[in-house]
Amino acid sequence: MRGTERVSTSTEPEIPDNWGRWGADDELGTLNLITDEVRARAAAEVRTGRWASLAQPIVPNPMISSPFAPTTVDVSPVQQVMTHTGVGVAADLMLVTNHHAKSTHIDALAHWSTGDEVYPGRPRNQVVTPAGVAFASTSAFAAGIVTRGVLLDLAADGPLPSGHAVTSRDFEEAEERQGVEVRPGDALAVRFGWPADPLIADRPTPGISLDAVRWMHRRGVALYTGDRGDAYPALDPEGPSPLHGVALGRMAMPLIDASHLDDLAALCAELGRHSFLLTVAPPRVHGMTGSPVNPTAVF
Amino acid sequence: MRGTERVSTSTEPEIPDNWGRWGADDELGTLNLITDEVRARAAAEVRTGRWASLAQPIVPNPMISSPFAPTTVDVSPVQQVMTHTGVGVAADLMLVTNHHAKSTHIDALAHWSTGDEVYPGRPRNQVVTPAGVAFASTSAFAAGIVTRGVLLDLAADGPLPSGHAVTSRDFEEAEERQGVEVRPGDALAVRFGWPADPLIADRPTPGISLDAVRWMHRRGVALYTGDRGDAYPALDPEGPSPLHGVALGRMAMPLIDASHLDDLAALCAELGRHSFLLTVAPPRVHGMTGSPVNPTAVF
Amino acid sequence: MRGTERVSTSTEPEIPDNWGRWGADDELGTLNLITDEVRARAAAEVRTGRWASLAQPIVPNPMISSPFAPTTVDVSPVQQVMTHTGVGVAADLMLVTNHHAKSTHIDALAHWSTGDEVYPGRPRNQVVTPAGVAFASTSAFAAGIVTRGVLLDLAADGPLPSGHAVTSRDFEEAEERQGVEVRPGDALAVRFGWPADPLIADRPTPGISLDAVRWMHRRGVALYTGDRGDAYPALDPEGPSPLHGVALGRMAMPLIDASHLDDLAALCAELGRHSFLLTVAPPRVHGMTGSPVNPTAVF
Amino acid sequence: MRGTERVSTSTEPEIPDNWGRWGADDELGTLNLITDEVRARAAAEVRTGRWASLAQPIVPNPMISSPFAPTTVDVSPVQQVMTHTGVGVAADLMLVTNHHAKSTHIDALAHWSTGDEVYPGRPRNQVVTPAGVAFASTSAFAAGIVTRGVLLDLAADGPLPSGHAVTSRDFEEAEERQGVEVRPGDALAVRFGWPADPLIADRPTPGISLDAVRWMHRRGVALYTGDRGDAYPALDPEGPSPLHGVALGRMAMPLIDASHLDDLAALCAELGRHSFLLTVAPPRVHGMTGSPVNPTAVF
Repeated sequence: MRGTERVSTSTEPEIPDNWGRWGADDELGTLNLITDEVRARAAAEVRTGRWASLAQPIVPNPMISSPFAPTTVDVSPVQQVMTHTGVGVAADLMLVTNHHAKSTHIDALAHWSTGDEVYPGRPRNQVVTPAGVAFASTSAFAAGIVTRGVLLDLAADGPLPSGHAVTSRDFEEAEERQGVEVRPGDALAVRFGWPADPLIADRPTPGISLDAVRWMHRRGVALYTGDRGDAYPALDPEGPSPLHGVALGRMAMPLIDASHLDDLAALCAELGRHSFLLTVAPPRVHGMTGSPVNPTAVF
Repeated sequence: MRGTERVSTSTEPEIPDNWGRWGADDELGTLNLITDEVRARAAAEVRTGRWASLAQPIVPNPMISSPFAPTTVDVSPVQQVMTHTGVGVAADLMLVTNHHAKSTHIDALAHWSTGDEVYPGRPRNQVVTPAGVAFASTSAFAAGIVTRGVLLDLAADGPLPSGHAVTSRDFEEAEERQGVEVRPGDALAVRFGWPADPLIADRPTPGISLDAVRWMHRRGVALYTGDRGDAYPALDPEGPSPLHGVALGRMAMPLIDASHLDDLAALCAELGRHSFLLTVAPPRVHGMTGSPVNPTAVF
Repeated sequence: MRGTERVSTSTEPEIPDNWGRWGADDELGTLNLITDEVRARAAAEVRTGRWASLAQPIVPNPMISSPFAPTTVDVSPVQQVMTHTGVGVAADLMLVTNHHAKSTHIDALAHWSTGDEVYPGRPRNQVVTPAGVAFASTSAFAAGIVTRGVLLDLAADGPLPSGHAVTSRDFEEAEERQGVEVRPGDALAVRFGWPADPLIADRPTPGISLDAVRWMHRRGVALYTGDRGDAYPALDPEGPSPLHGVALGRMAMPLIDASHLDDLAALCAELGRHSFLLTVAPPRVHGMTGSPVNPTAVF
Repeated sequence: MRGTERVSTSTEPEIPDNWGRWGADDELGTLNLITDEVRARAAAEVRTGRWASLAQPIVPNPMISSPFAPTTVDVSPVQQVMTHTGVGVAADLMLVTNHHAKSTHIDALAHWSTGDEVYPGRPRNQVVTPAGVAFASTSAFAAGIVTRGVLLDLAADGPLPSGHAVTSRDFEEAEERQGVEVRPGDALAVRFGWPADPLIADRPTPGISLDAVRWMHRRGVALYTGDRGDAYPALDPEGPSPLHGVALGRMAMPLIDASHLDDLAALCAELGRHSFLLTVAPPRVHGMTGSPVNPTAVF
């Protein structure tokens, strides 16, 4: 029984859990926290029209190689094939690996399973099928997400140390330093100052701790994004991964993995504020496990 | 010489043309019209955080068929394949037809050629290559577009008549009716009340006339989107298509084809205003001829 | 324990099993039975150079759809995309669903698992990986298979009855009728007179019984192909499927699914003999679970 | 008029041309030369059942990359994706670049255009369409090709010199050395002793000269394959490429590019004969520009 696993004792850390909180048919998870009031608060952030993208640029590979395209050796999340149109119009197809460290992408809740179940307690084999995802897929947010975003820039003075476990204390110190407060329904952007692709790093990356996830739960964060997320290698190899295993899997909080936050941080510093309107508008494709996305912060 | 083709006489309609207007290396076209001032005007539209998506929902097809997925007969712009991950994580690939009438997508300037040249006068065979698009591709707006949007709802009282040629008069009547004015740098959304896929229609669709394109040119429209665009069949089979041939090809105005404007129109009617902040944030993929996009209007 | 499952009693049918017969590192299974002597016997069949293909014709679908290719509704195992080459050369890609009822294809041994193991007893999760198949894949026969083939035409007088269970008696009657004998190392082609795609049939298809598989085991059949194989729906819903579960899974006999045998049967009837040289030469691709193939019978 | 281009003078080399030879609707080209008599001659070569594949082995790349498959840097003509089946069965898709130097593949006649025409004189834009190839595609030989094959091993004493132009003299010397004669309807396999991928070579490759193509024309060769074909860089940059431009384009002789002939040469040397039965059985897919193939020589 999954339920019994959630019984916390005084000696083990509490696992935040939203299974059942919004009913047995809920597909939104923590996006339920984005109320009209939250959106109005987000709207109030928009004054200048200055903006930044939170997405990594992607250079596609040709899907074909020699002799009609150069031989390529780089790995890209997107493969492109230029098609023969027979007329003076250029067209192409793209093949997208939805979950890729070189692509800023959003994880649907069904991306993660806890045992044989998917949030909020459906059998995995009924949700994840060869023909697509039947529940808690990208359909839940295909039309987009609009809320207030807050950047906590933990790397304003340089990248976080290798292996650093980000805790609630880091978050609260950043709030104080920046003069901003994370409130219910906010999207939280966390800047580590590290490249999104952990394979690039030659040292253990820093990562979000379970303590930090519990803090997000208490604060009512609706959505997480960061240039880094779970540490690689794992901070605690024995436990569930804090962001994917707990925040996505148990709290039902969608994650935007592998974002690019340098432009956002620079704009925040220039404008002297770290909250903004955030629009998250993936291609409006239903039934996927995830999708590339280009989150946009407007000030 | 292409230049000689542009010599208009008193008896032939003038073709708006921006080739050369922003220099020989420009890849933005009319997006140059979106200044900080325009964006500030856009920001002023945001008061409530209410919002609407301008994208059609897309239901993907399985890339595979029987025996592991149901046999499907519907055509979709997106094909999905669920991948074997070997662990309790669901993942997939998607294969996207970038230009598809059932998908709201943005056309890069290099999508269109005039003769053997691409805006602003480069040889097509140097721009459009088997390995991708070398100039005026989606790279130009991969980070996103933020500007003010204006909806001119020509279908507030029902779909436009079959074969109707939308003219500047339609636009100006809508402006007056709605109490809004299209200004330089604005994105223009035009609602016909017709389905985006012309193959669905059993009658000639209405479409944008050359007169309407000249009006956009005079007004300084930066971006066009509509639930319909060029008529099908063409209004004038002899001339260039007004939107793709002239607005995209000559004016260098990116087009968002096949948008879904019913939700936007309903929200405009409810709020009593037809201007908004528009964010256009395709997957941040460089070098493509176009990309699926989920434009977001925030009020 | 798999071993205990194989203990047969007097009341349960014996399951033929070759796990371990050719050692722990074997990837060939019953293809080990094709000796030089068998191939010499096959060579002796070749006298005229008349030949037939055993493969279904495949009409590919365009991978793209409108506007640059017609909207298609048929399901095909192959999707084709014509590529932009930029020169006067036509080129394309094809995307192949390796296991498809409309495609004549060969199943690698690793296509099937018995419990969590793959022939001849390797853990499935080490063999079947997200990056391909590490053992008992198409690599085992990528260079091709050459042996003697024998057609047993069970449909010389018309299609087999709906739901018919093909047994050893059917095979032996056909041998006698045709004056041919299935010998060790032979490839066995069985003609049911039914379409390969079971979804086309509106009645239960006939299929191979466990008794027939045991007969193949006794005779030393190296390879099975048929226009039909396992019945649909299953003859015995409780037991393993005779061909895939037992012959492929336990006997380690590669299967060529969904072959087209009408041309072969006509040629056999014309020539008055039902044995031939069979070449099976899939694209020489390693590491796959299966592959399209065009088996060729030469007389 | 194309006809006028074919007028040869005493000072320019004659271009062999079969356009019109087999009528305006012919799709077979030189495969018409494979008569029953030729096939009977091929059959007479089969005595032992020894055999060899003429195809390069292909190691596919994963279509996905990290995190669920290793990051790969090698270029392969085949990309594989392991699919989620939801049951204990392994399945996959493969995406094939049909024309690739690392893949042994057959060129359909429609692969090549002469001016705006495809053999035997059809307008290219009617033959090569965005939805596939309408004429002279792989459909012409989808059921397979069976004929006599002859290996002329020009590299028995080591690879041909860099830049060497293979002529009729090379062929005739090899015939004499090997005691074999190329006759009408034969498939000709030519071994250069060079890798099939010209990009691997750091020096100009040897290649087939126009003189050698004229010899094939006189001899009635039905099909060409080689580990190399046209030289890279071209022997004569001004003229058409001998094999692709003339033999494929004008003589309408299908080409099997990039074959692997070392195993065949070794077997020929062992058996002391250089002629054999050749079966060429690509996946039976219609309408393609080319296809991977695994030609099989049986002795």
